[in-house]
Formats: sequence, structure tokens, C-alpha cells
Amino acid sequence: MVTMDSGALDAARLLAEHRLPGIVVTDRSGHPTAVLPASQVVRFIVPGYVQDDPSLAGVLNESMADRCADKLGDKKVRDVLREHLRDVPTVDAGDTIVEVAATMARHRSPLLAVMKDGELQGVITASRLLAAALKH
Amino acid sequence: MVTMDSGALDAARLLAEHRLPGIVVTDRSGHPTAVLPASQVVRFIVPGYVQDDPSLAGVLNESMADRCADKLGDKKVRDVLREHLRDVPTVDAGDTIVEVAATMARHRSPLLAVMKDGELQGVITASRLLAAALKH
Repeated sequence: MVTMDSGALDAARLLAEHRLPGIVVTDRSGHPTAVLPASQVVRFIVPGYVQDDPSLAGVLNESMADRCADKLGDKKVRDVLREHLRDVPTVDAGDTIVEVAATMARHRSPLLAVMKDGELQGVITASRLLAAALKH
Repeated sequence: MVTMDSGALDAARLLAEHRLPGIVVTDRSGHPTAVLPASQVVRFIVPGYVQDDPSLAGVLNESMADRCADKLGDKKVRDVLREHLRDVPTVDAGDTIVEVAATMARHRSPLLAVMKDGELQGVITASRLLAAALKH
């Protein structure tokens, strides 16, 4: 479970390991409060002047692995998330795949939090939903 | 390679199989022209009245697998893409990982097209980039 107080580097490792487009952040009772997108972590690692001009990337004298450790190592998830928290659309673990698809379509979200008895069970992405839908 | 004239069902299968948040659509010469997000395919499959009220999902008398076949089977990628095509940010296969991160951060895109000699080589997502960055 990832909360606002989880380590930012741990969250980045989870995103990387499971190839997730984003990760659901919960409060201490397991209720989803935000999504941390992988692209937001990438933005956090790259300095502003290199974002403005990617040709300046060559002047960085650190490897990306070192940059990740330096920029994320002593940070918490709350430091990397943008100030504006988003509501996370949720579905229930017992919902049918059509209901899940309907909720995803309605919220135009590539990611939903899956709840069971009010607690976060996991996450479903649009591509995983398609995989389930296409399986006969 | 996916073009505007590729089958929509084939594109959905590619998204599902590789768990991609989106797929790059190219013209016949291999130049990227658009991104088809997995969430857009999900929206296309779910009828409008169910998107407006997901509790109506139960009235659908088709399985999701049948719906996919019915809605996507005779459609092309161009039919599923929204009218407004987006520019696809590109990187070069020879770019460093820092340059790729900088381009991704600059465009706030979760997905980049990777080009080699003017042709599409593949796609890199934010989570795959993090995985490469975190590998020592």
C-alpha cells in the first residue's frame, strides 16, 4: 500500500516493476486519495532547464540512476505529487467487467482503484481491461 | 506497425497483449501521426447510455468479448480515434535515457515514439523509462 508518507523511490520502483502508468495513493485506512502518474515521477527527476531545452541533457554529469537516488531518495510521495489531489474513480471487486468498462469510460480514466469492503484491493488499467475483455 | 487502416480489433489486441497505455499510429512511410490510447478503445466499446449511468451495465445482454468483436470487428483504427489527431513526441533510438526523460517531461506525455533513420522503432512509456533509470 502506498500512502502520502511512503518513500518516493519505493513508489518509483513499484511503477517500474509492474509497468504501471500510475499508482493509487491511499490514506492510512486504505481509502484512495490520489493517483501518482509515472510521467509525474519522470518530470520530478528532470531539472526544469532540461525540460525547457532537452538538448541540455548532455550537461548533466550524473547518470539517471544516480539522479533518481538523489532526487527521490529522501522524498516522500506527497513531495512528488502535485498540490492538486485528484479524486480516484473506484470500482468494486465484485463488479462485472462491463461495469468496470463503463466506469472507466465515464471518467475517461486510464486507471481505476479496485475496492473490497472499503479497502483498496488493487488497480486496473485500460490495457488490462482490454486483455480481460478479449479473452474468450 | 499500426496505421489508420489497420483493424481496430487487432490494435486492441496489441494494446492488451503488451499492456500498453496507448499505441502509436503511423502513416504508410512509418512516420507517427497519432496515439490511440487504450482508454479510448474502452470508451468506444461501451454504449453512451451506460457511460452516463454505469448501473445500466447490467442491461447489456452481451459479454464484453462479444461486444469487442461486434463493435471493433469491422472497424478501422481511424474509426476509433477521435477526430482531433495529436502530434506524437518522438525521440531517437540513439538518445540517452536522460534525453528521453527530458523529452517526456517537456511534453508531459506518458508515451514517446522511438525513431531510427526516420522510421518508427518502438514506443517507450514512463514506467519503462523509470525501470531503465532505476537499473544500476
